[in-house]
Amino acid sequence: HQVRLTRLHLERIEALDPQVNAFITVTADLALYQAEAAQQDILRGETRTGKPLSPLHGIPFGLKDLYHTRGVLTTSGSKFFSEYIPDRNAAVIDRLLAAGAITLGKLNMHEIALGVTNVNPHFGACRNPWETTRISGGSSGGSGAALAAGMCLGSLGSDTGGSIRIPASLCGVVGLKPTYGRVSLRGVTTLSWNLDHAGPMARTVSDAAIILQSIAGYDPLDPASVNIPVDDYTTHLEEGVQSLRIAFAADDFFRAKTDPEVFAAVQAAAMTFAELGAVVTEVDFPNAYEAARANGLMTVCDAAAFHHQRLGEQPEDFGADVLQRLQTGAGTPITDYITARRTQAELRRQFEIFFEEYDILLTPTTPVAAPAIEGPDAVAQAARLTRFTAPFNLTGLPAISLPCGFTADGLPIGLQIVSRPWAERLVLQASHAYERATPWHESRPPPGEE
Amino acid sequence: HQVRLTRLHLERIEALDPQVNAFITVTADLALYQAEAAQQDILRGETRTGKPLSPLHGIPFGLKDLYHTRGVLTTSGSKFFSEYIPDRNAAVIDRLLAAGAITLGKLNMHEIALGVTNVNPHFGACRNPWETTRISGGSSGGSGAALAAGMCLGSLGSDTGGSIRIPASLCGVVGLKPTYGRVSLRGVTTLSWNLDHAGPMARTVSDAAIILQSIAGYDPLDPASVNIPVDDYTTHLEEGVQSLRIAFAADDFFRAKTDPEVFAAVQAAAMTFAELGAVVTEVDFPNAYEAARANGLMTVCDAAAFHHQRLGEQPEDFGADVLQRLQTGAGTPITDYITARRTQAELRRQFEIFFEEYDILLTPTTPVAAPAIEGPDAVAQAARLTRFTAPFNLTGLPAISLPCGFTADGLPIGLQIVSRPWAERLVLQASHAYERATPWHESRPPPGEE
Repeated sequence: HQVRLTRLHLERIEALDPQVNAFITVTADLALYQAEAAQQDILRGETRTGKPLSPLHGIPFGLKDLYHTRGVLTTSGSKFFSEYIPDRNAAVIDRLLAAGAITLGKLNMHEIALGVTNVNPHFGACRNPWETTRISGGSSGGSGAALAAGMCLGSLGSDTGGSIRIPASLCGVVGLKPTYGRVSLRGVTTLSWNLDHAGPMARTVSDAAIILQSIAGYDPLDPASVNIPVDDYTTHLEEGVQSLRIAFAADDFFRAKTDPEVFAAVQAAAMTFAELGAVVTEVDFPNAYEAARANGLMTVCDAAAFHHQRLGEQPEDFGADVLQRLQTGAGTPITDYITARRTQAELRRQFEIFFEEYDILLTPTTPVAAPAIEGPDAVAQAARLTRFTAPFNLTGLPAISLPCGFTADGLPIGLQIVSRPWAERLVLQASHAYERATPWHESRPPPGEE
Repeated sequence: HQVRLTRLHLERIEALDPQVNAFITVTADLALYQAEAAQQDILRGETRTGKPLSPLHGIPFGLKDLYHTRGVLTTSGSKFFSEYIPDRNAAVIDRLLAAGAITLGKLNMHEIALGVTNVNPHFGACRNPWETTRISGGSSGGSGAALAAGMCLGSLGSDTGGSIRIPASLCGVVGLKPTYGRVSLRGVTTLSWNLDHAGPMARTVSDAAIILQSIAGYDPLDPASVNIPVDDYTTHLEEGVQSLRIAFAADDFFRAKTDPEVFAAVQAAAMTFAELGAVVTEVDFPNAYEAARANGLMTVCDAAAFHHQRLGEQPEDFGADVLQRLQTGAGTPITDYITARRTQAELRRQFEIFFEEYDILLTPTTPVAAPAIEGPDAVAQAARLTRFTAPFNLTGLPAISLPCGFTADGLPIGLQIVSRPWAERLVLQASHAYERATPWHESRPPPGEE
């Protein structure tokens, strides 16, 4: 059955991806080879080396194209890496493969992960399966679109200002940015050494929990990795939200900056949590604007530092929006950068203090549903769409996006659930309770041309 | 007796400080007032509010002049703050006062703490009590000199690249830079938000342990403070070094860059540890040069950010060496700064891995004993004297300096003892064992003119 499952997904990619453009590389032969092996393991009841089978055994994945894959093209959505074939896997890819996952191929992304539209000048726009004139969101747009269109069952994204949560929101799937340091970044192309997070994307919260369980853990070879024990994310999923102290961000920053349809859906989600037994309070969430601004400033500076040589030698090989942002970063006064670092330390403390009073924070993931591909430029979209997600990159807090409704136009709306450092378990538990109580995750986009 | 002890120290300041220039401000009346109260408490056997007496009760302190003191001039060694009287105490000053400490006054320092000579253009050079043509070291030079000359029994310094340990080394006293985040920096004038450490200076290791016990602890209002329980630093002091794995840094960076007299003294200290039962190994200590360089680069950039407005509006009010370094910082390309931050994360991990194999690292504190005041300029001295101390600011590891011998000229030599994060107890325990086994801390400089 593992071979059949993989084959079905490959057929779906063949049928739908010409419209969606979620994949940069499809590794069909490799996937079928892995599926054969997985099927034999399952018949045997254990792996070839006698280990028990993981729940990921035989599950077809798509991987954002900045996860290094041994022997498989890894472009990072960039012209500079358009022929780059790594000689080793990212640390978490080794973990996924050891767990028996199938890799269908490498997914489209915003160029070098610096942007949220996923209109990629080198590999084409990734389109939203719900409405292909709309953006998928980004930078992990291929992950969001492939999951929504049923072209894979699990995915890995990365998130520096919202790049997991934004495409999850716009494509109506689940995306979790864990606590900073929870998942190894070794072998994941850097955007910012200070703000990058690797994490799972999936079609349900429980799938995301299973994937996180497989990839979470200390990696001494990643300087950002933190040596704190990994929780059990799956066995507590059913524990509900009874008596959890849930804050709903309803101050002007969230209320006035959000499309009314989106805000109403999130407000309804807050009521659902109250009906499920949580203690829900409307709160002013402090300094979210300042946090998003500092995160945006550091992202472009950090990216300019990482791409320093390429920016100096071949700036024309970057797309226009990415080049503009890298140049902004390179030209930022050093004092502004250092001040933003201080703001980061201060807000990290403030947000931690906030989460002594509350267990969970609810916000919209994005202030709007998926914008049109032919819309405002990518730089403006980045500022707008990261508004509610970026504060939790700056502060490193765990945050998930999951579906919470639809606009009148039939586009998905995303709910963001945030908690204190290392509380992924609580985030998943609350998300699962909400998902079980609502129908939103069951909807699927129109199947497209087949 | 508390009044008499305070009076003796004030008399000593009056007699010796004209030659040494360790104090910027002497608060004699305040000290005697505090001593009166302390004496009454001691007669009563408890504080006025019925609390038990601390071992610091009635002990006369001098405070580096960047600790904010309510109602008392706090210059930070700078012309800009030459009339600044704070309206509240630094967090740790409140703790010291609550413990019954006496504050004799505010101590000389290198201008804004950015330098190691303590030749202060606004308040005069602080001179080394062992030989007043020599520098005291800095930036906490007043603390080192006042302790060495017997003008106070305890002091607080601050350390961004070696500013506690360097004057401790050059003046023959004890100075401890705790783990980053162990002691609150609230109300301590910033040099670098990323590298500053507050810590105790004293005449013996056990005094330093007592002071650390009083000032260590989490402060939610300092974003750099870390919420990790405080050890008991004093009751384990006598536990010795039996079987401790002690590394002695004997690679080229340490050997070739150190004055042979100084290196020989540190080598002899390593042998003493072996005789005391430790397992001593000569090691290559990785990347110390790279760490010192990244620390120096970030220090001037961070300082330029903190003093941004002053640097823009009244650069002429900074001394020549400080102005030069601030301008270097302001002119540093942002990419170099961001790369240094990444180096910091990488070396923090490497040094932590080193301390899985070893419990303690021994190095010279400074490569030379106290240089002449009329020597190389302050900028060159900073690069030279912070060479072995700065790596432990970058990585935030606890590090102490204590006396380990004398040069043929009769100048003190400092031994640096380093350990893993939060292992202040181990650092103090090893230092105490060494101090008990050697006579160096008993020596006192010539009394000067009285």
